[in-house]
Amino acid sequence: MSAAGRGKTCGVLLAGGGGTRLWPASTRARPKQFLPLGRREGEPLIAGAARRLSAVCGGDDRLLVVTASSQVPRVREALPAVPEARILAEPAPRDTAAAIGLAAVYARSRDPGAIIGAIPADQDIGDEARFSELAARALSVAAERDAIVLLGIVPTRAETGFGYIELGEPVGGEGARAVMRFVEKPGADAAAEYASSGRHLWNAGMFFAPARRLCEELASHAPATWRGLEAIGEALRTGGEAEAARRAREVYPDLPAISIDHAVMEKTSAAVAIPADIGWSDVGSWASLAETRASDDDGNITRGNAVLIDARRNIVVGDGDHAVAVVGLEDVVVVQSGRGILVVPRERAQDVRRVVDALKAEDLDEFLD
Amino acid sequence: MSAAGRGKTCGVLLAGGGGTRLWPASTRARPKQFLPLGRREGEPLIAGAARRLSAVCGGDDRLLVVTASSQVPRVREALPAVPEARILAEPAPRDTAAAIGLAAVYARSRDPGAIIGAIPADQDIGDEARFSELAARALSVAAERDAIVLLGIVPTRAETGFGYIELGEPVGGEGARAVMRFVEKPGADAAAEYASSGRHLWNAGMFFAPARRLCEELASHAPATWRGLEAIGEALRTGGEAEAARRAREVYPDLPAISIDHAVMEKTSAAVAIPADIGWSDVGSWASLAETRASDDDGNITRGNAVLIDARRNIVVGDGDHAVAVVGLEDVVVVQSGRGILVVPRERAQDVRRVVDALKAEDLDEFLD
Repeated sequence: MSAAGRGKTCGVLLAGGGGTRLWPASTRARPKQFLPLGRREGEPLIAGAARRLSAVCGGDDRLLVVTASSQVPRVREALPAVPEARILAEPAPRDTAAAIGLAAVYARSRDPGAIIGAIPADQDIGDEARFSELAARALSVAAERDAIVLLGIVPTRAETGFGYIELGEPVGGEGARAVMRFVEKPGADAAAEYASSGRHLWNAGMFFAPARRLCEELASHAPATWRGLEAIGEALRTGGEAEAARRAREVYPDLPAISIDHAVMEKTSAAVAIPADIGWSDVGSWASLAETRASDDDGNITRGNAVLIDARRNIVVGDGDHAVAVVGLEDVVVVQSGRGILVVPRERAQDVRRVVDALKAEDLDEFLD
Repeated sequence: MSAAGRGKTCGVLLAGGGGTRLWPASTRARPKQFLPLGRREGEPLIAGAARRLSAVCGGDDRLLVVTASSQVPRVREALPAVPEARILAEPAPRDTAAAIGLAAVYARSRDPGAIIGAIPADQDIGDEARFSELAARALSVAAERDAIVLLGIVPTRAETGFGYIELGEPVGGEGARAVMRFVEKPGADAAAEYASSGRHLWNAGMFFAPARRLCEELASHAPATWRGLEAIGEALRTGGEAEAARRAREVYPDLPAISIDHAVMEKTSAAVAIPADIGWSDVGSWASLAETRASDDDGNITRGNAVLIDARRNIVVGDGDHAVAVVGLEDVVVVQSGRGILVVPRERAQDVRRVVDALKAEDLDEFLD
């Protein structure tokens, strides 16, 4: 049990991502977390994540959002109920160790006993009740054992695109188990083994821990990161939020760009994981929409004004201001958004990254903005 | 030889078409003839047709353009060198008998001996020098024999989508032959026979005739059409262009909607045809772009900002303001234009009509405008 006792829960939305894996809908200016791709019609992923996390923490005013400075206006638009002071702007993207650490510093300054629940803002969860239940359990375990608790996803396929958590012995009930090690994206054979081992989970980047403990772990295992965060925390205590923001602009860009996995989780003895069967999707490619959307009788998944004729098992996404017609094709992804159109077989949906590379190489960068 | 002697040549552009066979680029508001699909970069089909016909007639001021009232502004934009008084507005679309007849009435009122050369404004011709040569020959034969001369296209494939002209005996040299009969769109077997018979031509709707003779033929074979046109001609003689336009608004909408083929050509004894090998395309579907555009090393034909990865023999058309990316597909048509996107296998490009029907049925008409 923490010296400060169990404080309130602080939900942290990690909203600093800037990928283009869902081009043309996601762009540098509008990353994935702002796309209306959740299960609720029209709801941005970040709003769905906030809704789920808010239910666990007890209100939108108990959330912190860590995002890029340039994205603050979009966050405010997507999350009008989150107080402006609880949107933390990163002056530069420095990966998850810095982002979670920044949130921990802020949470702790307001409540020394705060328990953080940090989740990515750009994922989707189908079974929200189950998520609430497991998140509450993770918060309890984190507080009781002063641990960093991961919700890890029970694999549903031999996925080679994710990192895995290898589980050890049970820890104190509630389904929690020690973390043996983290495994980077595996090959096909290993992925097949992990999918059925009962000892491996997908690492979905969902962390639950006392803010103080997180700070201590960063101080131990990622001292360069911690020094910068500590300076920001000191400015917060002595000069308030404006002073902290000023200090952050000075020190944050120089923090190491390192993930919380590499910086802390692979080194700490405090890591615990709880298997989560929550209908999770990373919404990592257009093909993944099949995980979150119902299909019609022909197996097509559509959004916007889609016209399908003799077409089966396609994923067709339009912005609603356009008509997207697909005739005589199967298993194809067609996306229209903003200034781009993408047409690719479902099984090659990951190759959008090659499109992005080509746009850069051919001096068509403007279509990525 | 005509009683009036051979007058000047009057080129007539038939620009009243309103199809949506090239949706989403062609719409009700912007029919095919205004699309920039000619061989010259950015040139609307109608501008290419005007350029070719102008070369035959001796100048843009010798053209007449027959178009829908609503399209007059587009015609003026596409053909700035054509005097406004030479753009004839149809108050309603009444097919080609009325359109060619209207042009004949106007041409004859200015020059009783005028020889008309009438061609559709929405086709493409690759060998322009050969077209000029054959059009000049057709005009000579029309004047000398007081005939209606067709330039018919030498078939290059067993096409079932066109009407055919069956040829008879040679007529007076210059390659001209009597027209035996017109054949509606044939079945596959007949089309295969026609393609190699040496006696069949595609009917491309290109007519060359003395204006007076055309009027006489309409009077004989299409009296209802002729009565209306005669009333417009009378108004033109007695009250000038404004009066003629007023009279046209009264009588034109009640003219029979009938093609010049049915109204005159199938009945007259004056029909003659000249085989034309001129690299002609009706630009009748997206697949037909392969007839008019060079492909890259992978067989792709592109327009606008296309990004192709592992893609072969595709036809990819964008409007230049969007990036259209196609990954891992073959023999597919992808078109982005205005408010629509079309994705269809090349061999099914004709099925755009089913898309248009579906848009109407699903109350998405707005995407056809």
